[in-house]
Amino acid sequence: MMSGDNLSLWNDTSTKSAIVGYVHAVTDPNNTKFVPEVERVATFDNDGTLWLEKPLYMQLHHLIRQIGIVAASNPAVRIKQPFKAVYENDQAWFKEAAAEVSKGDLTKAMSIVAGAAEAFEGMMIEKFNANAYDFLTDTRDARFNVPYKQLTYKPMVELIHYLQKNGFAVYITSGGGRDFMRSVSEEIYNIPRQNVIGSDIEYEYKIDSQGKAQVVRTTKVEQPIDNESGKPIHIGRTISRRPIFAAGNSDGDIEMLQYTKSHTGLSLGMLVHHDDADREYAYDEGAEQALEQALGNGWVIVSMKNDWKQIF
Amino acid sequence: MMSGDNLSLWNDTSTKSAIVGYVHAVTDPNNTKFVPEVERVATFDNDGTLWLEKPLYMQLHHLIRQIGIVAASNPAVRIKQPFKAVYENDQAWFKEAAAEVSKGDLTKAMSIVAGAAEAFEGMMIEKFNANAYDFLTDTRDARFNVPYKQLTYKPMVELIHYLQKNGFAVYITSGGGRDFMRSVSEEIYNIPRQNVIGSDIEYEYKIDSQGKAQVVRTTKVEQPIDNESGKPIHIGRTISRRPIFAAGNSDGDIEMLQYTKSHTGLSLGMLVHHDDADREYAYDEGAEQALEQALGNGWVIVSMKNDWKQIF
Repeated sequence: MMSGDNLSLWNDTSTKSAIVGYVHAVTDPNNTKFVPEVERVATFDNDGTLWLEKPLYMQLHHLIRQIGIVAASNPAVRIKQPFKAVYENDQAWFKEAAAEVSKGDLTKAMSIVAGAAEAFEGMMIEKFNANAYDFLTDTRDARFNVPYKQLTYKPMVELIHYLQKNGFAVYITSGGGRDFMRSVSEEIYNIPRQNVIGSDIEYEYKIDSQGKAQVVRTTKVEQPIDNESGKPIHIGRTISRRPIFAAGNSDGDIEMLQYTKSHTGLSLGMLVHHDDADREYAYDEGAEQALEQALGNGWVIVSMKNDWKQIF
Repeated sequence: MMSGDNLSLWNDTSTKSAIVGYVHAVTDPNNTKFVPEVERVATFDNDGTLWLEKPLYMQLHHLIRQIGIVAASNPAVRIKQPFKAVYENDQAWFKEAAAEVSKGDLTKAMSIVAGAAEAFEGMMIEKFNANAYDFLTDTRDARFNVPYKQLTYKPMVELIHYLQKNGFAVYITSGGGRDFMRSVSEEIYNIPRQNVIGSDIEYEYKIDSQGKAQVVRTTKVEQPIDNESGKPIHIGRTISRRPIFAAGNSDGDIEMLQYTKSHTGLSLGMLVHHDDADREYAYDEGAEQALEQALGNGWVIVSMKNDWKQIF
């Protein structure tokens, strides 16, 4: 049986029933809650919803690696942060940066990213794609000892396929780097590159030394970033249809879930709860408000511990 | 025979041979120029490439109509432009605005649009979509006496379908208003709403008086606008793959055509030339540089007069 024919990696809990019941309702032409295929849009956050986000966002690790590469070959940049810290392997600086990120304040995290983005300045978008792909393929997680791109939550990947088989157009809408995720989204999720929405750096058009037209990365962060109220805004811009299904795991997903639940038709909002320290991590940090609002808003809470047969 | 099985609305000229020869080459697995389906991306400008842009951009007419509606019900706005001119039917003001637009300077045109956008401020994006759809369905062109949405160039619509049947993902990338075009793109072109790239106004997220989450229009123009170097930038952001086929009709399309022709594989760039005063209009204004560069860059020039059996 192919992934997506049913939810084989999900335990038979009320969570699974809620998902299956929902999908049956909106796909059955005889059901009063039926939704035509063209309107079946599902949006998923990525970090912590579809793949591992601890102990450090994979994207942050990627930036740090590139900062190290640039600092190693260019002494001039070593006088400033974050190049100095990376070149000198300044663990105290790292800890501080990680603490800011783990507070869930992505605006601040993105300003770190913007500084670090200098390391990718002027890189052709095709080359960045290949660079990110190699990173996610070659870098192994310290705890799980497998390449990053294998650390997707398999029940969630199965859910994506299940929705696709039921006529849903599935999108990623993540606070993290759009192009970083696009490098692997087709391979690991079966989500087309153009269906990946995220935050990213602005581009610039130029003619290169060979007379070829290129699009390259700058260091300026595109506004708004794709988090909190930026998520519904990006959804409107890119998809132009309101989701009827949305999944997240943190406070940055609240507005996307509100927007989805405000659909005039039947919708489903889902929050992945990290409650499995043995198989993944257990933490509520950065998700306190979302968890508090879930019950009142009718969002389905997914317990990684109780609802999933396996994680990776 | 369904539209798109062949190019039945095109005369048997070298233009048609160039298109058909190109599509055969990139879709034949035994051809050295074969391009896998996932990489077959085609981008089309809209105004003057897929539909009529004279005597006034349809979108500008739409804005003027809405300005009139707002001015009629709100005396306070009538003291300022463009509300005053529309309310008083000030033909001199109209002429001046039209002259700026016809110069092809879209940066200036977009600043007019931004001022006029006030008329749509705070409108939910779903409501704007319906509003634009009704306008394009109900408003008849003075010369051709049919609704605007019927004034697409039928040979170009056939070309879109032909490319889609040959495995191309077809996008619109227009300097004009994205959401305006999205309202009809599925019906008139068979292009999904999310495949329409264009310039537009920034959005805002809010909770309405009924407690529902909404995305509404502001008056600020999103940057960069989708014209000139903005086109390859928007293509990179949205599609994340370089087109192998691109069609335009004016100087604003030059960078998109350059970007396409800089693809490492075989690509085709096309310029629609308005040379048929009898059946449409004859003008080179705003396309002088593009026409001049076409030969040297190997872009195919489409003569509306000689290459098309019918226009509308």
